[in-house]
Amino acid sequence: MRNKENGLEDVVVAGDEDTQMCPIAGIPKEDGYYMPAEFEKHDGCILIWPERPGSWPHGAVAGRRAFADVIKAIARSERVYLAASKATIAEARGALQNIPNVEIFAVETDDSWARDVGPTFLVDGKGGRRCVNWEFNAWGGTFNGLYASWEKDNAFATTFAKWFSCEYYDAAPFVLEGGSIHSDGEGTILVTEACLLSPGRNPDLDKEDIEKKLCQYLGAEKVIWIPHGIYGDETDEHVDNMCAFIRPGEVVLAWTDNEDDPQHLYSKASLEALENAVDAKGRKLVIHKLPIPSHPVWIHEEDLEGYEFEEGEDEREIGERLAASYVNFYFSNGSVIMPAFGGENVDSDLQAAFIMRDLCPEREIVQVPARDILVGGGNIHCITQQIPANLIN
Amino acid sequence: MRNKENGLEDVVVAGDEDTQMCPIAGIPKEDGYYMPAEFEKHDGCILIWPERPGSWPHGAVAGRRAFADVIKAIARSERVYLAASKATIAEARGALQNIPNVEIFAVETDDSWARDVGPTFLVDGKGGRRCVNWEFNAWGGTFNGLYASWEKDNAFATTFAKWFSCEYYDAAPFVLEGGSIHSDGEGTILVTEACLLSPGRNPDLDKEDIEKKLCQYLGAEKVIWIPHGIYGDETDEHVDNMCAFIRPGEVVLAWTDNEDDPQHLYSKASLEALENAVDAKGRKLVIHKLPIPSHPVWIHEEDLEGYEFEEGEDEREIGERLAASYVNFYFSNGSVIMPAFGGENVDSDLQAAFIMRDLCPEREIVQVPARDILVGGGNIHCITQQIPANLIN
Repeated sequence: MRNKENGLEDVVVAGDEDTQMCPIAGIPKEDGYYMPAEFEKHDGCILIWPERPGSWPHGAVAGRRAFADVIKAIARSERVYLAASKATIAEARGALQNIPNVEIFAVETDDSWARDVGPTFLVDGKGGRRCVNWEFNAWGGTFNGLYASWEKDNAFATTFAKWFSCEYYDAAPFVLEGGSIHSDGEGTILVTEACLLSPGRNPDLDKEDIEKKLCQYLGAEKVIWIPHGIYGDETDEHVDNMCAFIRPGEVVLAWTDNEDDPQHLYSKASLEALENAVDAKGRKLVIHKLPIPSHPVWIHEEDLEGYEFEEGEDEREIGERLAASYVNFYFSNGSVIMPAFGGENVDSDLQAAFIMRDLCPEREIVQVPARDILVGGGNIHCITQQIPANLIN
Repeated sequence: MRNKENGLEDVVVAGDEDTQMCPIAGIPKEDGYYMPAEFEKHDGCILIWPERPGSWPHGAVAGRRAFADVIKAIARSERVYLAASKATIAEARGALQNIPNVEIFAVETDDSWARDVGPTFLVDGKGGRRCVNWEFNAWGGTFNGLYASWEKDNAFATTFAKWFSCEYYDAAPFVLEGGSIHSDGEGTILVTEACLLSPGRNPDLDKEDIEKKLCQYLGAEKVIWIPHGIYGDETDEHVDNMCAFIRPGEVVLAWTDNEDDPQHLYSKASLEALENAVDAKGRKLVIHKLPIPSHPVWIHEEDLEGYEFEEGEDEREIGERLAASYVNFYFSNGSVIMPAFGGENVDSDLQAAFIMRDLCPEREIVQVPARDILVGGGNIHCITQQIPANLIN
């Protein structure tokens, strides 16, 4: 049962329904389902209100402000489905009360990364829409995962699917986060070797096995592997921070010409992989460089004082370089919602906006100050998960 | 004598020279001199380091940071001549030590508005360059001026001219500030009626007398009058906050479609005046609207606590709306150095940058966070004064 009213009087808790929905047996690809590209039409977007004290310092005040800015930008053109814990839902409703087109529902999670814990939606081009639940193990499980327990996050995708009345496939025990894949909607999936071959995910599967799983569950024909993501990215270098499709056959790639920056070799090696790649349709890719912020974004002492880490949780350190990248944008209907880092990076913020405007003249460019999301461990793309429109092709 | 070295060891004080330089007798126009447009080539730019406690709250810390950002942006493409008081020159040198192409000299002023107190430079197209000293009375003298005394500011233009070894005309007692005029470099001067006809400037001169003075001292043929500048602008609505030439025959105009904003009628009336105008070359103007910030920029309590007002000085108030406008940019060689207001105005900041980039594709667009200059009473254009190159046409 969905609570269509954004009222304060009743908190409908996702997962409390009497639904008997079970996963669909079978393989999405065989059923004609595939993952559309993010740049295609959406019906909405899922986010999760930030709360975890080890991710969001100082009571998540600044983090929530940044999330609210992202939500406001998205809600202009598509419905926002915001999950919040029972403890924070009233506060979330208060903070967002003036933003139309936002539906808030209660569900408990371990953190706020809808991209990684949310379902991956598929369509069949005939008006059908289903989704996939992956196994989630906090970016590496006991090998190098970032929390000691992740049961609530791992349950989120199926909880949402049921609440949203969307049939789902269950890919578990295959481990995957939504931020580690991009689809061009035409049969090609983009991933990094650093992440998908990391021993913390699916150590019993080799590259070929992983390609097969991706193609089966995302309805794809071809996987393009790039070696690296962003230097220091604690997700084992998710592709969504590094390289994104802006249309079929065309990508932006995080870049730096600075040879003293360890990112340079990461970007260069990934550029070479992309230059040598052919997509599912047999096309060579058009590759646009999108420079990273001109100055590194660091964790400061005042940030660090505000975190409260749990036992077994990965802790931050002063001077830790955050994995800042302009590629971590979200394509809402009609817009590119991009991070801005401010401070020393005002020039590169503006240059990134100019590049994306030139590349996507059909979209509005919206920049949201995102340092307070970065401090939590991700960026704009990481906190969103699109629900594609179930169109008939 | 000019101190060409930007060293700390000796403070050369402008005005201490033994120069016997006197104003040139005569009228610039009759001598073949005229004011080139700001978008033409410069040899440099004058600024004055902020200090006045009634303008720059909290010891001018934030103001100086914003000035340093502007100086850094300008110094990329032209030499910066920075005046600082003897009390602040060492601090200025320290703050700017890593920025090349900056020459700092000591001179005492009342405040930091090089646009309004600096000389207006003229050229003759044959390699000659001279400048004009105007009478400065703190934007309205005893009628509605902003300080009780302004002798040091009034002396600045001739002090600079002597230090820079530039012959000067003396237009005093004609009262004018540099921010109240724009030149297209081809015989047209743009002004506002609200400012130039204000009773605090030249009450004994009528509109025709003022046009004559402007044409004589700026080597112009035609004055275009618009009725208004920016609502609440305490300079009596200087044109440089409202409308600027971007090339001959083409202007940007501060604009709002919001009919509830008092600026709407100001902008509409000025648009009509521009639409009905013909420039010195007989051209109708091409007019581009440049929307003002989407949200007003206000004085906050924490700003107010930081000011120390002198007797007779205009004081700020909490909730006072600052005269924020994107038109108050500076054309350096190769760039448009634009204000950004941040906060609620991130969207309009970006839209303004996009508009200027489309209008000036040959220039780099640089945005500098400018709220801390606005708090002082002006904006980027107000704190600069270009020294045009003395080219041979």
